[in-house]
Amino acid sequence: MSSSPAQQPSPQLFFQTINAYQRTEALKAAIELEVFTAAGEGNTTAAQLAERCKTSERGMRILCDYLCIMGFLNKEGTNYSLTQDSAVFLDKRSPAYLGSATEFICTEKLTENFKNLAEVVRKGGSLATDGGTVAPDNPIWVKFARGMAPMMAMPAQLLAKLADPAADKKLKILDIAAGHGLYGIAFATRNKQAEVVGLDWAKVLEVAKENASNAGVADRYSTIEGSAFDVDYGSGYDLVLLTNFLHHFDAPTCETLLRKVHAALAEGGRAITLEFIPNEDRISPPDAAAFSVMMLGSTPSGDAYTFSELERMFANAGFVDSELHALTPTIQSAVISQK
Amino acid sequence: MSSSPAQQPSPQLFFQTINAYQRTEALKAAIELEVFTAAGEGNTTAAQLAERCKTSERGMRILCDYLCIMGFLNKEGTNYSLTQDSAVFLDKRSPAYLGSATEFICTEKLTENFKNLAEVVRKGGSLATDGGTVAPDNPIWVKFARGMAPMMAMPAQLLAKLADPAADKKLKILDIAAGHGLYGIAFATRNKQAEVVGLDWAKVLEVAKENASNAGVADRYSTIEGSAFDVDYGSGYDLVLLTNFLHHFDAPTCETLLRKVHAALAEGGRAITLEFIPNEDRISPPDAAAFSVMMLGSTPSGDAYTFSELERMFANAGFVDSELHALTPTIQSAVISQK
Repeated sequence: MSSSPAQQPSPQLFFQTINAYQRTEALKAAIELEVFTAAGEGNTTAAQLAERCKTSERGMRILCDYLCIMGFLNKEGTNYSLTQDSAVFLDKRSPAYLGSATEFICTEKLTENFKNLAEVVRKGGSLATDGGTVAPDNPIWVKFARGMAPMMAMPAQLLAKLADPAADKKLKILDIAAGHGLYGIAFATRNKQAEVVGLDWAKVLEVAKENASNAGVADRYSTIEGSAFDVDYGSGYDLVLLTNFLHHFDAPTCETLLRKVHAALAEGGRAITLEFIPNEDRISPPDAAAFSVMMLGSTPSGDAYTFSELERMFANAGFVDSELHALTPTIQSAVISQK
Repeated sequence: MSSSPAQQPSPQLFFQTINAYQRTEALKAAIELEVFTAAGEGNTTAAQLAERCKTSERGMRILCDYLCIMGFLNKEGTNYSLTQDSAVFLDKRSPAYLGSATEFICTEKLTENFKNLAEVVRKGGSLATDGGTVAPDNPIWVKFARGMAPMMAMPAQLLAKLADPAADKKLKILDIAAGHGLYGIAFATRNKQAEVVGLDWAKVLEVAKENASNAGVADRYSTIEGSAFDVDYGSGYDLVLLTNFLHHFDAPTCETLLRKVHAALAEGGRAITLEFIPNEDRISPPDAAAFSVMMLGSTPSGDAYTFSELERMFANAGFVDSELHALTPTIQSAVISQK
């Protein structure tokens, strides 16, 4: 009814985008109210969902319609149902539940970086005076380690399978900025001969150690506490994991770190990088490319690097070869760099 | 690269939506920095745009890439250019410039309503203790009248053309909650025999009177100050305009008002309603349907009403017939109701 011919100017995109913050708030509200879990349990009408989630029926009806508009629910008549993705990722009873990721993604410490984006663009980096999210020992990373673990289970398994497909040889692995530890743990779970050293701030490593213990690999999981730029890595690693780490820093800083990684690897060792990697046009695929704005707001000089930029950093740090691998269905990619 | 087969679960929509607030902030920043105007002036590279807008090049490059991802700019190589819609609506030099609408749409008084949407859903309406946006004399409506006028010029002209196509007869028009006054003024501009009475809070009417004067129709523009629910409308109107007004109230309140409108109309007179009107499924078209969340957060009991709901309200108030008209390319529709 309101759709417009291609050539006629329309303020539709402006209107959608200027109100896009309501999408974030509606999704947060639905997760907090457990709407998706309630729908998964078989509640289908606004009245049933409202009763289960202890809300007004009117509020629930409007919220659910909005969730349909955004693509999180289906609607037939007055009955709502979960989409496949919502059933997998937003029903609390699903093992792949992502709802707790909002504790990190929506934390004030992160979102406040975007409240004056004009000034961020003027400056060219985060307005945070303490270094933003990359400040030493920033407590945000404990939230990250706790909240984002469920979101990382799938990419961690995909990455371990990609980098160690046979899983039948002894491997010494360093997991830099381990966070929740799930990447290193995924390697240790698949390969019984893998030994993992997790490196991160002490408080963050508590989460990683918990997760290693829960996964039954605590006896092959050790830790190094501190900044990846300062501590001694040891040496002789077969693999060094750099998952969601390089995007926080500028290229010279990354290269400094990569030289240290290079030195810590055994001959024939490999650096395994997981990143949001846009195509060379920097605007596709949209989700990976959009991550650069996250880095603009929350770090002094981080970015979503293209593969050619990452390749150059690794080459400058002494690596002989880097290869790009899609990590479908995640929105991230892996780079495997050979010492 | 990161796109996934249809049947494979993907956290893409979750990730996009939970970060959607960054879209709002990026668009606001681009408008504030005059990026679109700068691009319209012929600046194409991040370096040129940064110099013109007095920003860092890095911040501008990342912002512009994000604007491309969102569909506000095109990119070829490292050159950015305006899309057709951005040229029409976001370049300050365009007569249809909408940038100033952000002063209303993004005002804290409005956006704060969405900061705890879970609680809003529990309650079933705005948490504002003073009645939300529909509180008497709320100063937000002066911002609305000033900021939203550019956004209303097109729908106002479309509405006047729809309801008074010949524009050759004497018309007495009441414009309820006139705001910027543009709807009534559009009728007066097209039809030299039209006399318009604008009704709104006194401070808001100052804006309407300015606009009437600028349009050269001040001699046929008079005003009634106060609440549409309280003041005496007078009588004998050929047209009563209800533009973006009914959505603030529940159906019984609307009907009370419509009975008053009915009484003020001459025999054969018509009420002309402009609204966000979703289809009966309440989830399409997306922009009109999504407006219900705006009303959930910002009013005690408003809604984006379907045509059948509006038809019923008008019928209950004594109108004999209501007709729905699309107002393409806007995302709104008109209802013409016959006394």
